[in-house]
Amino acid sequence: MEMGMVRLNEIRTNEVAIAPPQAEDAALVFIGRISTPWTSRLETPRQGRPDGPVCTIEIFEPWVAALKGVERFERLEVLYWLHHSRRDLVLQSPASNGEVHGTFSIRSPVRPNPIGTSIVVLEKIEGNRLFVRGLDCLDGTPLIDLKPDRALFKPIAPPQQGDFETGQVHMCKKIEG
Amino acid sequence: MEMGMVRLNEIRTNEVAIAPPQAEDAALVFIGRISTPWTSRLETPRQGRPDGPVCTIEIFEPWVAALKGVERFERLEVLYWLHHSRRDLVLQSPASNGEVHGTFSIRSPVRPNPIGTSIVVLEKIEGNRLFVRGLDCLDGTPLIDLKPDRALFKPIAPPQQGDFETGQVHMCKKIEG
Repeated sequence: MEMGMVRLNEIRTNEVAIAPPQAEDAALVFIGRISTPWTSRLETPRQGRPDGPVCTIEIFEPWVAALKGVERFERLEVLYWLHHSRRDLVLQSPASNGEVHGTFSIRSPVRPNPIGTSIVVLEKIEGNRLFVRGLDCLDGTPLIDLKPDRALFKPIAPPQQGDFETGQVHMCKKIEG
Repeated sequence: MEMGMVRLNEIRTNEVAIAPPQAEDAALVFIGRISTPWTSRLETPRQGRPDGPVCTIEIFEPWVAALKGVERFERLEVLYWLHHSRRDLVLQSPASNGEVHGTFSIRSPVRPNPIGTSIVVLEKIEGNRLFVRGLDCLDGTPLIDLKPDRALFKPIAPPQQGDFETGQVHMCKKIEG
């Protein structure tokens, strides 16, 4: 295997695959589709960049009405389904050099639930299409969710008790148990 | 309805529910469980805080091995399934005052795919349990994914062509079409 090649579906030296239980705990609906310049995993960025190419996010019906007010946010959090990823590796070797990393310690698309998250810069919205920068996924990637960047969003609902809780008083039992 | 009450499952004045298509495009497996001090939606914070109570994230087998190396990260991105949320609202009134916001313009737990994301501060790991601050979800919330905070993570794999792409050269067709 060549050093540094992108993963297609191979398992690399020292990587560990498990036999995962059936994925049947919850079900997703694809609410849109992402268009990017990248049609091969050999080209996609490892991480999106805010000055990257403009990509489009198309929202399907019946969710287009849910875009109301999105134009007020400069940055959005985007969740998408990494539809080509295998899901069974617990140790991975991103550099294909025999050194392995736990799946939860890297941002590889190969995960038990292959969901990608990106923070994108919103350029404009036209009808059911958003034009954004900062994505890192393949052309045709299914969209799962869209929300304001947490750093820009202030809850509209009044605060609740939990908003004022600090420290670890409530969790002593669980920490010791 | 009282002003500012938390949503249980009611639909409020001016909110709009749609008849969503069956959620059957992809399936999730719950890979762990989150323990927090909050057992009612009347108490949970609207947003987690980095100095909030310590909560625990338990990882189920066969994914415990995927924790290797997670201890090196001060902050993690956590994805979880908001298992009590309805999924059919496109316009919502967080303040219950008749004013509505598009679902994608707020961070409400009510979404077509009710996935919560938080950035948490990692305090320690013991076996298959992580102790973190910054969560905002109910006790017993199912875990979907765990990865390093994007701001702390540098890809281990060598860069690819897309990592160097800026501007919108590739997308002119799609922007105009």
